[in-house]
Amino acid sequence: MNEFSWPVRVYYEDTDLGGVVYYANYLKFMERARTEWLRALGFEQDELITKNDVIFAVRNVEVEYIKPARFNDQLTVTVRPVELGRASLSLQQEITKDKGLEMLCKGKIKIASLKASTFRPCPIPASIQEKLTK
Amino acid sequence: MNEFSWPVRVYYEDTDLGGVVYYANYLKFMERARTEWLRALGFEQDELITKNDVIFAVRNVEVEYIKPARFNDQLTVTVRPVELGRASLSLQQEITKDKGLEMLCKGKIKIASLKASTFRPCPIPASIQEKLTK
Amino acid sequence: MNEFSWPVRVYYEDTDLGGVVYYANYLKFMERARTEWLRALGFEQDELITKNDVIFAVRNVEVEYIKPARFNDQLTVTVRPVELGRASLSLQQEITKDKGLEMLCKGKIKIASLKASTFRPCPIPASIQEKLTK
Amino acid sequence: MNEFSWPVRVYYEDTDLGGVVYYANYLKFMERARTEWLRALGFEQDELITKNDVIFAVRNVEVEYIKPARFNDQLTVTVRPVELGRASLSLQQEITKDKGLEMLCKGKIKIASLKASTFRPCPIPASIQEKLTK
Repeated sequence: MNEFSWPVRVYYEDTDLGGVVYYANYLKFMERARTEWLRALGFEQDELITKNDVIFAVRNVEVEYIKPARFNDQLTVTVRPVELGRASLSLQQEITKDKGLEMLCKGKIKIASLKASTFRPCPIPASIQEKLTK
Repeated sequence: MNEFSWPVRVYYEDTDLGGVVYYANYLKFMERARTEWLRALGFEQDELITKNDVIFAVRNVEVEYIKPARFNDQLTVTVRPVELGRASLSLQQEITKDKGLEMLCKGKIKIASLKASTFRPCPIPASIQEKLTK
Repeated sequence: MNEFSWPVRVYYEDTDLGGVVYYANYLKFMERARTEWLRALGFEQDELITKNDVIFAVRNVEVEYIKPARFNDQLTVTVRPVELGRASLSLQQEITKDKGLEMLCKGKIKIASLKASTFRPCPIPASIQEKLTK
Repeated sequence: MNEFSWPVRVYYEDTDLGGVVYYANYLKFMERARTEWLRALGFEQDELITKNDVIFAVRNVEVEYIKPARFNDQLTVTVRPVELGRASLSLQQEITKDKGLEMLCKGKIKIASLKASTFRPCPIPASIQEKLTK
């Protein structure tokens, strides 16, 4: 299970009056990277909902804020799967500056697989399981 | 068609690095006030979707930014219907500080009534039409 | 160190295509409650910045998402200090529905006290320390 | 004064319970494109603040919402200057899908040039004026 990385630029909308990225917005950056990671593996989440009746929901997050990101910063957000269950998946994510040289933020995100129609837990689709265990 | 007003406090999340409210967020404040205005008239938008298959969508906004709102400001957001069509509604909205003494922002918002299932235009429900023309 | 609670209504802006509150937005609700908790204790964060050169920054969050909040839900967000250090403070926060009957989300948030001018750690102001240890 | 365009992908964070992009978020997309347009012209807004004491503030927006953008849509946001004053600038912006084939949203945005230290109007820096009139 390899590491994936995705670039994110910091815009005005992301900052707060402290001049740095607002703490909830790092979760947006991490979610963008997860979406692009799934896309790179061949999975579009809108098709997962409409064709497979599967939606991913975040169950748990742990985020450590090390240094603040600032306006105009060019960030790198990584995704690394660390635990794959039948109906859940845990990912390690990092947000860095200067192509990984400066660590800003680390997160561990646990995702649950749910039936989109009922929001009840369901197995992660076999096609995704396969890709993640190769 | 009387004026309705709703209080909004400015939090960290609303500000940007300029130390003032980010320009898109005034539209959030206006939309909160519209939701509470409809609620005060007796209409819950989740029930409009599930029971009446009606959803309101913004078609047009004109916003004039006069003075910036800042962190911790206690704002007042008003809603005043100015034009009622068969399938659309135009509202004048103002955002002020100090209970109306200081004008920060003015908006004119045009709303369309859509079938929630198809996103096609549909008449504004008669019950709402009635309330607005009393 | 008593518990504080603050009401939050869910608006359109808070939801995502899943029909529930977007996971990052619970952190906004928690931050609003922390701001109001400090205000209730007699501290305004804009004055802390300008008069005391102190700004609070989040160092760590752990959030458990139990059930989703939906559009129009009237939520209650609590703040309970659980650990008070010289330059940091940990808070337990909960988001519930129906006045506490239904638990939606639990968080543990660690806050650091920083000099606003340098972003370096500094002691929590004595006036706040006092209030929190009474 | 040529047209500039910038790609924007729609993520979960941008959508609301209607399954489409929340109306305020189109303003974020437009602002990202303006930032990248200035960058392409050679101007970094953080340097404009710190070196030139100049910050740009939005004075007026008119937005027409034609069709909704949806999750996963790959959008194109354009920037076209239409009026250049001494201390203000008006831009026409469009948001399209399928590389311009499908028009979703049109905006006219008026920007004011302010002294960052006082928020008072000031001339647009000569270096920017020059670039825009070439």
